[in-house]
Amino acid sequence: MLGIAARRLDIECVFLDPAPSPPAASVGPVLDSPFDDEETLARLASDVDVISYEFENVPVAALQSLADTTPVYPPLAALSEAQDRVNEKRLFEALEVALPRWAAIDSEQDLHNAIKDIGLPLVLKTRRFGYDGKGQYVLRKASDAEHALSQLPPRPLIAEQFVAFDREVSAIAARRRNGDIVHYPLTENVHRGGILRTSSAPAGPASLTDAAQEYIERLLQHLDYVGVLALEFFVVDDRLLANEFAPRVHNSGHWTIEGTETSQFENHIRAILDLPLGSTLATGHAGMVNLIGAMPASPDSLISTKMHLHDYGKAPRDGRKLGHLTFVEQDPASRDRQLARMDAMLGG
Amino acid sequence: MLGIAARRLDIECVFLDPAPSPPAASVGPVLDSPFDDEETLARLASDVDVISYEFENVPVAALQSLADTTPVYPPLAALSEAQDRVNEKRLFEALEVALPRWAAIDSEQDLHNAIKDIGLPLVLKTRRFGYDGKGQYVLRKASDAEHALSQLPPRPLIAEQFVAFDREVSAIAARRRNGDIVHYPLTENVHRGGILRTSSAPAGPASLTDAAQEYIERLLQHLDYVGVLALEFFVVDDRLLANEFAPRVHNSGHWTIEGTETSQFENHIRAILDLPLGSTLATGHAGMVNLIGAMPASPDSLISTKMHLHDYGKAPRDGRKLGHLTFVEQDPASRDRQLARMDAMLGG
Repeated sequence: MLGIAARRLDIECVFLDPAPSPPAASVGPVLDSPFDDEETLARLASDVDVISYEFENVPVAALQSLADTTPVYPPLAALSEAQDRVNEKRLFEALEVALPRWAAIDSEQDLHNAIKDIGLPLVLKTRRFGYDGKGQYVLRKASDAEHALSQLPPRPLIAEQFVAFDREVSAIAARRRNGDIVHYPLTENVHRGGILRTSSAPAGPASLTDAAQEYIERLLQHLDYVGVLALEFFVVDDRLLANEFAPRVHNSGHWTIEGTETSQFENHIRAILDLPLGSTLATGHAGMVNLIGAMPASPDSLISTKMHLHDYGKAPRDGRKLGHLTFVEQDPASRDRQLARMDAMLGG
Repeated sequence: MLGIAARRLDIECVFLDPAPSPPAASVGPVLDSPFDDEETLARLASDVDVISYEFENVPVAALQSLADTTPVYPPLAALSEAQDRVNEKRLFEALEVALPRWAAIDSEQDLHNAIKDIGLPLVLKTRRFGYDGKGQYVLRKASDAEHALSQLPPRPLIAEQFVAFDREVSAIAARRRNGDIVHYPLTENVHRGGILRTSSAPAGPASLTDAAQEYIERLLQHLDYVGVLALEFFVVDDRLLANEFAPRVHNSGHWTIEGTETSQFENHIRAILDLPLGSTLATGHAGMVNLIGAMPASPDSLISTKMHLHDYGKAPRDGRKLGHLTFVEQDPASRDRQLARMDAMLGG
């Protein structure tokens, strides 16, 4: 989707993706080396004017070597903070962004202390390289502590307060190299099994939008950020608690292709090239449904007057996002009805 | 732009374009043979499920040989009628679509008769293979007849009444293989030197839109058309006079990418694949300005909050369309002001 946005501006892209048959292959040449193959990275750096990424689990060290000669956006400081949940929480705290209670867990004793201090249930996660709900364990009884630790990889962990949220929302913003910022309308998200299932936008109320924008601006400024950034929140009693941020275009912003004047993808491209950012005005009330694990038997049958199919052309795999559907209605009630209908039809 | 629309649906495209560095090269493999190279065409036909075109001057005979084995949309009957201005006029007449007066010109005597019957000025054109105002001569005095004929190629010609129009509009519609039709809002166009300079939409009044849709439906039905069709009109005293039709996605519909829920490109792809057509609702008041001949010194400087640049990546050449700008405003007055400003800035 970034490649498509770049094509419109006649910007040539070279992609790096070690996966077989990557979707990007249809919009440009793909280097299929591992993310840390030094020779490929050096070739990439010498061939291009700017490097970006849209996947958090790229080794920072690999990108660091490129950043000496070629601009890399978003800045690696952002990637590095996002890759470690403890650093991420500390950053939220430093910027006075409200967040759930948490504790670093390096031993069984740490976990028992966390149970005592934070209370149950607790969500136990790996500090690094979590993705789409992988590497998580919800601890409901203190006596599960040992079992929980045995279920997770023997790596540094983090315990997070289990938040009985009312709903989940995300803020998405773009910051240009010159410091200009645009905000997308707040998006409401529904996850299932740790994977984003649906998004709808614009989400209210205005007070939450204001608070979310204030928080994301702190991150953008602090990190001297360039590109699109997403910040996910739990909403509890009309208060925001930051869950995590993603230094990239975000699944909860896919609706912006049809639902706003300028998509998150075009604005990411504009931001990293230091071009004026495009209007983020919503053109209506958008709904987005992810297609996960396997495509429906006949994905084309999902296309309709209002329904836009995006098929990434990826091989099916359990839990993998293979595409999404977006539609834009003229009022929120129609949008919500349609979203419920699509969600149910696609397996709920 | 068709390739981008196809990519979203995970449809692989193979392109045929004999020009060097074709824009399509960034969204798929390009065969660079001539349009009538039989071997290439046969390979193309055996490789694909459906063939389309977006350029009128493709030899019908070349496509005809493919159509026996592979569906070709829009239907070749439409291409064949559009390639010959006399056939096109006769078709308008048969379908009772109002049009300017005209006469086939095969001799100097025919031209003198036309001057007498239709009056002056007259527009003298080649019957076939006209494009962007090429192959035209405006005859203002009867004594210019000989000179006019000497200026045009020695091929069958057509004389058309010179219409002192109030404005020019185009109707764009898509018809699906199953017969479903959607109409885009009427578009107002400004040509300069025979080349489209600006478009704005939706254009009114409703009575014209209704008349234009009625006319274009007659064409769609008669031709058993599949794909996007554009029909250009002169507006004289609130009456429509058909100028010509184009059996393809049309420059006057480029604004639909940002300005409607479903672009003409996506609907063309949907139509030829027999998928439900997408909503053509306008998201605001759109303006489009073509970038012709040479790109501005710094095309990126045209990008702004509201301004979307499409750079086709073509080599500059006098009169060649190299890209376009689209913007969407919330009211027609802002749109018209912005369009005038952009047009003036880009050399008027």
